[in-house]
Amino acid sequence: MKDKEIEGWDYRAKPSSLSRRFEFSSYAQTRDFLDRLDQLSQQTGLYPHSTNFGTGYVNLTIDLDVDAEAYQAFAVQVGQLYRA
Amino acid sequence: MKDKEIEGWDYRAKPSSLSRRFEFSSYAQTRDFLDRLDQLSQQTGLYPHSTNFGTGYVNLTIDLDVDAEAYQAFAVQVGQLYRA
Repeated sequence: MKDKEIEGWDYRAKPSSLSRRFEFSSYAQTRDFLDRLDQLSQQTGLYPHSTNFGTGYVNLTIDLDVDAEAYQAFAVQVGQLYRA
Repeated sequence: MKDKEIEGWDYRAKPSSLSRRFEFSSYAQTRDFLDRLDQLSQQTGLYPHSTNFGTGYVNLTIDLDVDAEAYQAFAVQVGQLYRA
């Protein structure tokens, strides 16, 4: 596994970023995940580059171009929100 | 203006949908808009097909394939949230 890869996430080199699709069986679950993601962002000051969601999914892209280590740790924490 | 077009939104025929980009000067404003959009969706039972956002923008796509009139009214209400 390369330096910038994080388990469960797709790593892309140009621009350096992580992306991942999270699926949910209801809008309530989707919304709950988005709310917890927002709380995590407010706590850490780190935000996904883009968040794309419908009623049953959330696609995230996290940029690693600046402060890669912090954003990798953020990606791990986001994955933990999904399992929680 | 064609039947399914709504002022301020881009209409696409296949699939029949409306899309629009909303821009904000801060994440707090972006988040406030998303929260009000969520409240509107919960009140109306109508949701965008997809919501894509970063810290300073929200891109929405609203499907018109089913219940076009209800979703057109929803699009107008979403536009009013932006001006509010």
